[in-house]
Parts: sequence; C-alpha cells; structure tokens
Amino acid sequence: MHCDALWHHLHLATMAEGSSYGAIEHGALAVADGRIVWLGPEADLPAGLRPEREYDGGGRWVTPGLVDCHTHAVYAGNRSDEFEARLNGVAYEEIARRGGGIVATMRATRAATPEALFAASRRRVANLLAEGVTTLEIKSGYGLDTATEAKMLRVARELGRLLPVRVHTTFLGAHALPPEYAGRADDYIQLVCDQMLPALVAEGLVDAVDAFCEGIGFTPAQTERVFQAAHAHGLRVKLHAEQLSDQGGAALVARYRGLSADHLEHLSPAGVAAMAAAGTVAVLLPGAFYFLRETRLPPVGALREAGVPMAVSTDCNPGTSPMPSMLAALNMACTLFRLTPEEALAGATRHAAAALGVQHEVGLLAVGREADFVLWDIDRPADLCHAMGFNPCWRVVNAGHVRLPAV
Amino acid sequence: MHCDALWHHLHLATMAEGSSYGAIEHGALAVADGRIVWLGPEADLPAGLRPEREYDGGGRWVTPGLVDCHTHAVYAGNRSDEFEARLNGVAYEEIARRGGGIVATMRATRAATPEALFAASRRRVANLLAEGVTTLEIKSGYGLDTATEAKMLRVARELGRLLPVRVHTTFLGAHALPPEYAGRADDYIQLVCDQMLPALVAEGLVDAVDAFCEGIGFTPAQTERVFQAAHAHGLRVKLHAEQLSDQGGAALVARYRGLSADHLEHLSPAGVAAMAAAGTVAVLLPGAFYFLRETRLPPVGALREAGVPMAVSTDCNPGTSPMPSMLAALNMACTLFRLTPEEALAGATRHAAAALGVQHEVGLLAVGREADFVLWDIDRPADLCHAMGFNPCWRVVNAGHVRLPAV
Ligand SMILES: [Zn+2]
Ligand SMILES: [Zn+2]
Repeated sequence: MHCDALWHHLHLATMAEGSSYGAIEHGALAVADGRIVWLGPEADLPAGLRPEREYDGGGRWVTPGLVDCHTHAVYAGNRSDEFEARLNGVAYEEIARRGGGIVATMRATRAATPEALFAASRRRVANLLAEGVTTLEIKSGYGLDTATEAKMLRVARELGRLLPVRVHTTFLGAHALPPEYAGRADDYIQLVCDQMLPALVAEGLVDAVDAFCEGIGFTPAQTERVFQAAHAHGLRVKLHAEQLSDQGGAALVARYRGLSADHLEHLSPAGVAAMAAAGTVAVLLPGAFYFLRETRLPPVGALREAGVPMAVSTDCNPGTSPMPSMLAALNMACTLFRLTPEEALAGATRHAAAALGVQHEVGLLAVGREADFVLWDIDRPADLCHAMGFNPCWRVVNAGHVRLPAV
Repeated sequence: MHCDALWHHLHLATMAEGSSYGAIEHGALAVADGRIVWLGPEADLPAGLRPEREYDGGGRWVTPGLVDCHTHAVYAGNRSDEFEARLNGVAYEEIARRGGGIVATMRATRAATPEALFAASRRRVANLLAEGVTTLEIKSGYGLDTATEAKMLRVARELGRLLPVRVHTTFLGAHALPPEYAGRADDYIQLVCDQMLPALVAEGLVDAVDAFCEGIGFTPAQTERVFQAAHAHGLRVKLHAEQLSDQGGAALVARYRGLSADHLEHLSPAGVAAMAAAGTVAVLLPGAFYFLRETRLPPVGALREAGVPMAVSTDCNPGTSPMPSMLAALNMACTLFRLTPEEALAGATRHAAAALGVQHEVGLLAVGREADFVLWDIDRPADLCHAMGFNPCWRVVNAGHVRLPAV
C-alpha cells in the first residue's frame, strides 16, 4: 500500500468511543492524500506499506486536531477598559450608558477596515492554532448590519484560506439589537431574515445559523423566525440557549434538528430530553461561566445520563470570554464543570465536530478521516486538562502537512 | 552621559506608586551596566545621551519584569493521574491510601537524578519566562530529607545560572511530614532545624525559610521553632498561612518580621493588623483557590484598607496549582479575587519583589534598578489581566540583555 507519510513511535488517543480515549499505545498512523489510511499498533504495521516519508513521534501522544466549535474570534476593539472599570467599582449600568458591552464591539467592528479586522483576529486565531486547533467555528454578530456582518464573515473565510485551519462560519445576526433598532426587535429580525441572510448566503459566507435566545437577547418566537429562514436556505441551526435563564431554547433548537445548543447553565430536564431525542450537541462554555463568575452549573450529570454528546469550546469573545485557548477551556471544563479529562477531550474533538456537522470528517483518528492531528509532549492524555497556562503542543498536522505550533 | 542602550517609542508602566501604573506615555528608557540610568518622557531625553545601541519599542507598553514570588516549580513526577481519578469519582482518602498527594511527588523527586529533575523543572520555568518573568522564587519541600532538599535547591540554583532569570531559593523542609516520621512531627522539625537547615545554609543554598502552618501541616509551635532556627542563621522567613483554617500563622510570621504570609483565605482581622504593623507582604495565590474550588476569599478589602502590600503569584506546584503562568495568575487575581488590574500588576512586580526582600533591586522601573523589563503587544496595561490563555509578550530584557520570550 502506498502512503505519503508514516508516523510511528507514538501513542494514539484516537477518541474512538468505547474505551479509554480510544487509546492505542505504541501505535502508528499512515497518511495518504491528506487522509488517514491506516492506524493501529506499530506491531501490526502492514508489511507492504511503502511510505514516502517517515516521522518518528518520539513516544509522544497524538490526539485528533482540536475543534473549537463556538467562537466570536473575529472582532475589532478591546474591552479591557470595561473590565478594569468594573473592577474599579463602576456599575454595569454606567458602563452600558457609556456605550459599553456588545455595542462597543459593534462600533469598533463597523469602523474597522477589513485589513485591520483581519489583523486583530489573526492574533487570536494564531493563539488557538498554537494549541493544536485544526478546525474552528467563527460567528458573525458584531456587525448587526448587512455590510459589517459580511465583512466579518469574509475575514473568517480569509483566515481559513491563509492559516492552516478549517474555518466554519456561522451567521449570528440575531446576536443583539443594534441601537438604530431600539424598541423594534421584530423589525430587526425581519432585516436579519429577509435581507442579511439571503445576501450572505448568496455570497457563500454562511455554513450555519445561530441566535441569542435570552431575556436580554431575542425571544423564542423571534428565534424561531430566524430558524425558519435558515431552513428555507437549507442551513442548519444552533442556539445560545439557557445561559442566564430557562427560555426553552434548547427544546426549540432541538425541534429544528439543531446542531447544538450552547451554554445551558439553566437547561431544564425537558430541554435535556429534547436534545437527547434530536441528537443535538450540548456545547459547554466554561470560560463564560468563569469570567461571569456564575455559580449555577450546566446539568452535566443529566446530560451524561441522557447520552447527550457534550462539546467544550472557548466562546472566545471580547467581553464574557476573552480566552483564545482550548487548553484553558479543557481545564475549566474539568475543574469547574467536573467533566472527566476523557469527556473534556472528546468534547474538544469528536463531539465538537458533531456540533459543526463534520463528525464524519474530523474529530477522530480513524481510517478515512482527515489527517488533522496533534503531537503533544505529555505523559498521558489527562495532562491536556490538568495544567493551566502551559502549552505542550509539539507539532500539528493539517491534512497531512506538518507545522510547528506557532503560525 | 554614556549608556549601553536607549529604548524609545514606548509607553512605560513603571509601577511607581501614586499614579495609575506609574505610567509615562511616549516614554524612553536608558540602560548602562545592566541598570536603568534614565527614564522619562521621550520629549525630555537628555541632550547629551550617547547610546551605543538604540531600540525602537514600536509604541509598545513596557512593565518591570514579572516577579513570581511563590513557586514549587522544581519537582519530579506528574499528578494528573490523581486529578483524573478524582474526576472519575475516586475519594481523596483512597488516593492518599494509594500513596498520592505530596508523598507521591516526594517519592518521584527523591528517585529522580539531578539531571532529570532539572529537565522536568526547566520546562515549567521556561513557560514562566516566556510570559515575562525575570525573578523567580523556588521552594524546596518535596525531598523532606537532607539529600533531596539539597538536590532540589541545587537544581533551583542551576536554573538561575543557565536560564535568563534571577532565582531566589526558599527552604521549605517543613512542608509535610515524610512517611518515615509518621507520628513524630516534633522529631522531624528537629531534623529540619538541626540538620537540614545548617547543611543547606553551609552549601549556600538558602535565601529564605518557609513552613506550612496548618491543621494538615505543622503547628504554630513547630513553625516557630523553624523560624528561630532561620533567625539563628540570619535568614528571613515567610509562611504558608491561613489557607484552610485560621491558625494565627500570619500574626506569627509578622512577629518574626517575616517577608510574607501566603494564601490567607482564612486570615483574621488580627492577622491583617499584625501584617500591616510588621510590613509583611500578603501573597495571594488564586491558582490554588481555583484548583481547590475554594469559596472563601482572602480578605482583600481589609488588606487594602490596612495598607498591607498584596503580591500575586502562581504557587506553581504539581497538585493544587499546576499553573506555570503569571498571566493566568493575574487574570484569576482580578476575576476571582477582584483585585484591580493595577493592584494585580503591582502584585506581580513591586510587591512580589518585597515578598522576596529585593524591592530595591527589581519590580519597578526606576533609575538605579536592574534593567529587567518586558515589552508587550497590548493596548493598555489592563490587557495583561483581561485575557486568559493569551501571551502578548514581545521581548524580555534581563539586566539589559534582550531576549525573545521563548528560552
Ligand atoms: Zn457565544
Ligand atoms: Zn505553596
């Protein structure tokens, strides 16, 4: 059998279901045309394998490339000034009065040139890639007008073209109400559905559609209008649901056969059951929980018991989760949400891929999958969750191409 | 005036008291013989300055080199297996029965060759240095016998010789009771005072002396014996105090004119007053608070009101704070302990230097201080505290020598 490259002297955390990390110790892995064509114990290497190149993994652990399935990584501006003001005792209301919060990011993002927006976002994406991310979702939602939403998604696509990462774009026009629509949320939703979405779809900028269903966001009825528009374009949906209150958003997105419901601190038993029935992924975002100093945990035990797949993501954003780090998210998922390291790592690979609808392409080391994987300088897979602020990434392989962590 | 190097086109967060970050925007800084010989607004540059080299800071912010004043960064072994076992539901008692906890690290550290201990520790120290640390305290305390305590402190010294960092060593023989002294804590303290300390001092390995005063550690009376032995050798003391219960440790270490009392979640008003009177620094360790999921906060408001200087440190250790990252500690100090970013940064520079007794050498950008400083790719100093898992370090200067973040 021909192959482009053989990686040997490795331990494989394949993340296949059924055994601990799907581990194959003393394993090897062969790549051809950017895909995995063989993997297994090194002792079982097929005799007729003729690799063009061989790589010695040095006894390191390999995982699938990490999948960050929920980010707002494209934005301009910097809200550390609000962070500092709050810690100096300025009230939220006063910060909002000064034009802070999402509106501050919206103004900066509207004002930024595409080049400036790309440069600012590239730093965050590069940080994610340095920790082994190979697939990345990026949402719009700081433009809140057609031109700026398009600018954001074009920058997201450009990041995927120029950096070694698969980028999935999500249209999040229903993220917040722009000031020019104050008091007219239904009119804004109409704009989202009738003008923004068709224009962005026509330009090929949208892989999925998301909304923020919350007391301070949009109602379930408004969310449903967005979902119907998405379905009319043949697009799958996901939802910021049950973050601050139980709006029934998880059941709603499940009813629309949604890819994922995200956040979920206030998820009800009925929501859990609806997600389990629909196969909707629960995307846990412990960074937002940490930064907002929440005390109410998502119902991890109930999700586990119901067999709802749990993904883990950074929620990288300028306000409530300025954390472009999947390793930090993995640690917080274990430390704060009490996931096991194996659950957290499955949440950053296999289940995160499912939250993007690409579980048959990435997120697992298996024959036929994309050859996206990471070699780590660690003793065991749990090390990826145990430490905070320490990156043991040694090499990243994107579709068979080897790179150093830094890009 | 002659100088070796002039750095211009900078903003200086000098961390001088009295104004916001001691900031000098559009500043410059001159270095000669490894020390700062001039700094101020670029417009005020002395006319006769003749620098051998000039560096353009590119409009970046500069801070003093970070000082990590409380670490257990030298150890062997890896306790991610215990972390994983606990998350899989194994009780603490069972893990202790299997030989887990500090004793596990003790066994691995005793068994490690000096070379292996150096290599394992170097990775953690390099991670700290990559984030702008230029002064680092390292404690012993995983040997718990004379030979291994000496091995640890020799490795600490060697790290200081071979890496671009000033290392301060602290003897922490009274960290835990080694199994061979079970039930004989007083005998162990006698060994610490009469044999370990003299032997280590004779070899020049000890800059300060520390102990763990706690229900699960040593009593105040035992702690005091260690302090007396330290004073007999002319060494200053510090203490792991009031972490899990109020033992009166802060008042005790203050009575011995201690450099610092560290942890302090259970610090009493009397302890605050004693520290204020003695000038003892409060070293806050939010990483241990985070990893242990503590809910009781150290009395930051009372410390602030009493004028007790607050330092911030990683507590980098294999069990309760596997976090070789000052930037993570800064974020947690703000997010969890509600320090302002300016307080946190002062805690990672000026006050951390005081916790090591070197506040007249490092921790501040001022004429006569060591030229240890960091250039950061940030918009404002608060950015160092705002993000999690993102390192904006651009260059580090150690005693005037420029290096890249990675070492
Ligand atoms: Zn989000
Ligand atoms: Zn400690």
